[in-house]
Amino acid sequence: MKQKKYLLPESEIPTAWYNIQADMVNKPLPPLNPGTGQPLKAEDMYPIFCEECARQELNQTDRFIPIPEPVLEKYVYYRSTPLVRAYGLEKALDTPAHIFFKNESVSPVGSHKLNSALAQAYYAKEEGTTNITTETGAGQWGAALSYAAKAFGLEAAVYMVKISYEQKPYRRSIMQTFGANVTASPSMSTRAGKDIITASPNHQGSLGTAISEAVELARMTPDCKYVLGSVLNHVCIHQSIIGLEAEKQMEMADEYPDIVIGCFGGGSNFCGIAMPFLRHNILDGKKTRFIAAEPASCPKLTKGVYLYDFGDEAGYTPLLPMYTLGHSFRPANIHAGGLRYHGAGAIVSQLMKDKLMEAVDIEQLDSFKAGLLFARSEGIIPAPESCHAIAATIEEALKCKECGEQKTILFNLSGHGLVDMTAYDQYLAGDLTNFEVDEATVARNLAESKLDPSKAL
Amino acid sequence: MKQKKYLLPESEIPTAWYNIQADMVNKPLPPLNPGTGQPLKAEDMYPIFCEECARQELNQTDRFIPIPEPVLEKYVYYRSTPLVRAYGLEKALDTPAHIFFKNESVSPVGSHKLNSALAQAYYAKEEGTTNITTETGAGQWGAALSYAAKAFGLEAAVYMVKISYEQKPYRRSIMQTFGANVTASPSMSTRAGKDIITASPNHQGSLGTAISEAVELARMTPDCKYVLGSVLNHVCIHQSIIGLEAEKQMEMADEYPDIVIGCFGGGSNFCGIAMPFLRHNILDGKKTRFIAAEPASCPKLTKGVYLYDFGDEAGYTPLLPMYTLGHSFRPANIHAGGLRYHGAGAIVSQLMKDKLMEAVDIEQLDSFKAGLLFARSEGIIPAPESCHAIAATIEEALKCKECGEQKTILFNLSGHGLVDMTAYDQYLAGDLTNFEVDEATVARNLAESKLDPSKAL
Repeated sequence: MKQKKYLLPESEIPTAWYNIQADMVNKPLPPLNPGTGQPLKAEDMYPIFCEECARQELNQTDRFIPIPEPVLEKYVYYRSTPLVRAYGLEKALDTPAHIFFKNESVSPVGSHKLNSALAQAYYAKEEGTTNITTETGAGQWGAALSYAAKAFGLEAAVYMVKISYEQKPYRRSIMQTFGANVTASPSMSTRAGKDIITASPNHQGSLGTAISEAVELARMTPDCKYVLGSVLNHVCIHQSIIGLEAEKQMEMADEYPDIVIGCFGGGSNFCGIAMPFLRHNILDGKKTRFIAAEPASCPKLTKGVYLYDFGDEAGYTPLLPMYTLGHSFRPANIHAGGLRYHGAGAIVSQLMKDKLMEAVDIEQLDSFKAGLLFARSEGIIPAPESCHAIAATIEEALKCKECGEQKTILFNLSGHGLVDMTAYDQYLAGDLTNFEVDEATVARNLAESKLDPSKAL
Repeated sequence: MKQKKYLLPESEIPTAWYNIQADMVNKPLPPLNPGTGQPLKAEDMYPIFCEECARQELNQTDRFIPIPEPVLEKYVYYRSTPLVRAYGLEKALDTPAHIFFKNESVSPVGSHKLNSALAQAYYAKEEGTTNITTETGAGQWGAALSYAAKAFGLEAAVYMVKISYEQKPYRRSIMQTFGANVTASPSMSTRAGKDIITASPNHQGSLGTAISEAVELARMTPDCKYVLGSVLNHVCIHQSIIGLEAEKQMEMADEYPDIVIGCFGGGSNFCGIAMPFLRHNILDGKKTRFIAAEPASCPKLTKGVYLYDFGDEAGYTPLLPMYTLGHSFRPANIHAGGLRYHGAGAIVSQLMKDKLMEAVDIEQLDSFKAGLLFARSEGIIPAPESCHAIAATIEEALKCKECGEQKTILFNLSGHGLVDMTAYDQYLAGDLTNFEVDEATVARNLAESKLDPSKAL
C-alpha cells in the first residue's frame, strides 16, 4: 500500500512555536504611533492587546517560544494534523510533481485558525481578562475564537463582515452555538460603525471595518481585550505549528519541498506553513520557493505598495508596515471572505521586499475550478480561501508536467468548505464572476487612503 | 498532561470486519419473497444489490470478513478515527462516570457513513457496474456515497428525502460537488414517486419513499446497482470497523465500557460501535449494556412491533424481519433526518427480542439541549442524529452521579453538525418542538400498513 497520510505521535508534536523574526537579516519594521510617528513599545499595546501577545509581536530575538501547557493540551485534541500525499490530484493532472498538503481542515472548527485562537484566549484568561472581541471575514477565525473563548471560560463578541454574515449564515450560527455574541459589521453599536454606515448606507463590510469596531469595543469595555486572527507577527508565530509539524512529516515521507504554497489574506496560514521551511533558506542555504496565493480582486502583494498604513478602515490601529492597497480599499464580494483584506503583515512585507518569497494572484473562477478538481480527486471540499492555494499548486504542477520536472510541492489546506456550499452551488450554476483590480484602481485607492506611493519603504 | 485522544498506528487498523451473525445464538431471520413467502437466497438479490453485499447479508458463519485492500487504502486516509475521553462533558455534568466517544465526524464527509459507502462502491466497481443509486435522509449517507462513487469511478444518483433536500441544501450541494445527480424524493422520475405524489401532493418524503425510488431506478437501468446506507446486515458488518478500533483504543486507555450507546435510525452506526463489544457479552460473559437512542417521534424499538414488513413505502423490497411502525409510517419533520425510518434491521431486531440490548427514546428538544452542552464542553458541534446518543449518554452519566457510581460509558459520535446549523439556529431561537407518537398512532399505522400485531415474531 502506498503511504498517503503522515501523522506524528503525540510525543513528536512541537512544544514551541517558531519565531522567524529572530532569523530575519532585515527585521520587520516596527508599528508606529500615528500621532508621534514613533515606534511602539509592547507597553503601548497593552491597553488593547494581551500583554504576552504584544511582547511576542516585537520579539526579534527568541527563535522559539514555548507553547503553554494548557494550549498544548488543547492542540493535542486535534493535532498533529495529517500531511497527505495528493496521489489523486497528481493523477488527475498527470504531473510528475509530488504534491503534498497539510490538512488543517480536520480541526473541530474546520480550519487552521484555532492554532492562534487557543493561544490568544489562553493569554487573555491568564492575564485576568473576562471578555475578548474580534472581527471575522468568512467566519473561520470567528468560529475558532468562539470555540477558544468557550474552552478557556471567556465571553466572546465577534464583528462579522456584513456580506459574509449574509452569505455564510452557518458560520454565524456555529459561533452562536459556541456561545459567542455575533454582530454584522458595519453596525450601529460602535462609533466607527455608525460613521461608516452614515457615509455609505449600503456598505457591505470589510475586515478593515470590522477591526475598527472590535478595537473600539475593546477600548471602551473594561476587562476586554482585542484579538486578531491574522496579519500580526504573534499570529504568524502561533501558526508556525503547521510548518513545524509539516517539516517532521515531510521527513517521514523522505522528501523536502521545492515549493511551499499558502493562500494569502493577512498571512496567518501562509506564514504558518512557510516560515519553518523558510528558515532553512536563510540558515542552511536551501532553495525552496515560497508562493503566497492571493485573490486577483485583492492583490496587495502583486499590485500594492510597501508603505506605512492603518490596519483598519477607521484608522484606530497603529501604523503598520505593509504591502497595501490602502486601508479604505473595499474588496469585491468574493466568496473567499478570509482573503478580503487590504494589507499584508510586517513579516511577509519585509520578506517580499527582500525577495525571499513570491506572490501570485488567482481569479475567483480559477480558484473554484481548482477546488472542484481537488474535491473530486482527493475527496475533501476545500474552503474558498484554500482553493487559491490549490490553484497556485496546480499551476506549478502543470509547469512540472511541461518541463518533465519532478518537483515536490507542499501546500496548506487551511480549511474545509463544508460551510461554504453556497459558493460551490453558485459556481456549479455558472453564477460567479471574476473581479479585476487594475493599477489605476490601486492608485486611486492609495490616494483616497492618503498614502503616497513615492514614499514606498 | 491527561490523555484525551487515542489513535491507532496504521499497522493496528483492523483489516477485517466483524460479522456478529456468526456469533448470535438466535440468528437473524431471513428476508422473505413477498410473493411466495419463501426465504431469499443471495442470488435472488443479485438483480438489485452487489453480489458480494448480498452474500454478506446472509452470511451467518464467517465471524470475520477481510476488508479488500483498495477499501483499506481509502480507510487509512481518515482512519483510525480518534477515541476521545470527554473530560469537558464529564466536568459540565459533574459526574463520576468516565465518558468516551468515538469521533467518526473526522471523515472527509463528516460522518461514519463512508465506512460502508466505500465498501459498497468498491464491490459495485469490481462487479462491473457503472452506476449506483441510493436514498438519503439528512444527506450524510448520500454525501458519503457520492464521495465513494467518485473515488471508484462510478456515476451516482441519489434520491434525497424532500424535507431534508429543503432543510439541508448544503448537503445536497456537497453531493453535487462530488459529481452526483441528486433528486428530491418523492419525485416524478419514478413510478413509485408519481404514485405517492398523486396520492399525497404535499408528501414531504421519507426514507421509505426514497428507497422505493432508488430501487425502481436500479431495476429499470442496466448496469445500475442499488446501495443502502443502513438497516441491512452487510452495512452493519462494514460499520464494525468503528467498534473494532474502539476496542483497541479502550484498551490503550486501560478501560472497558460498562455501557455502549449509539443513536438509532436503521442501525448502521449503532451496530458499528456496539457489535464488536457485544460479542464479548455473548462469548466471554461480559455484562456491558447496549443502548440504542431513537427519536421519540420515530420509536420503532420502544413502541414498534417485531413483524415482517417492507423496507420501503411502495413495497418493492423483500419482507424484512423488523421492529416496525409500519412501512407507511410518516415520521415528523425532525432535524435528525437520518433517524426518520420506520423499522430496525434484522440483526438489531433479533438482539432486541433476545434482550441483548436496550432502547430509549429521546425528545427532539432534549437532543438539541444535549448537543449544545456537548458543543460547548467538547468543542465539536454534533449532527442532530448524534445528539440523540449524547442525550442518552448524559442520562446515564447523571444516574452515575446520583448513585455515586463510576461507570465507563462509550458513545459513538456518528457525525458533526456543521452542515446542520439551521437546526441549531432554530433551537437557539426556540422554534423547535417535540413530536409524540402514542400507542394508538402506532396501532393505526400498522393497520394502514396491513400488519397484524398479534402475529409478532
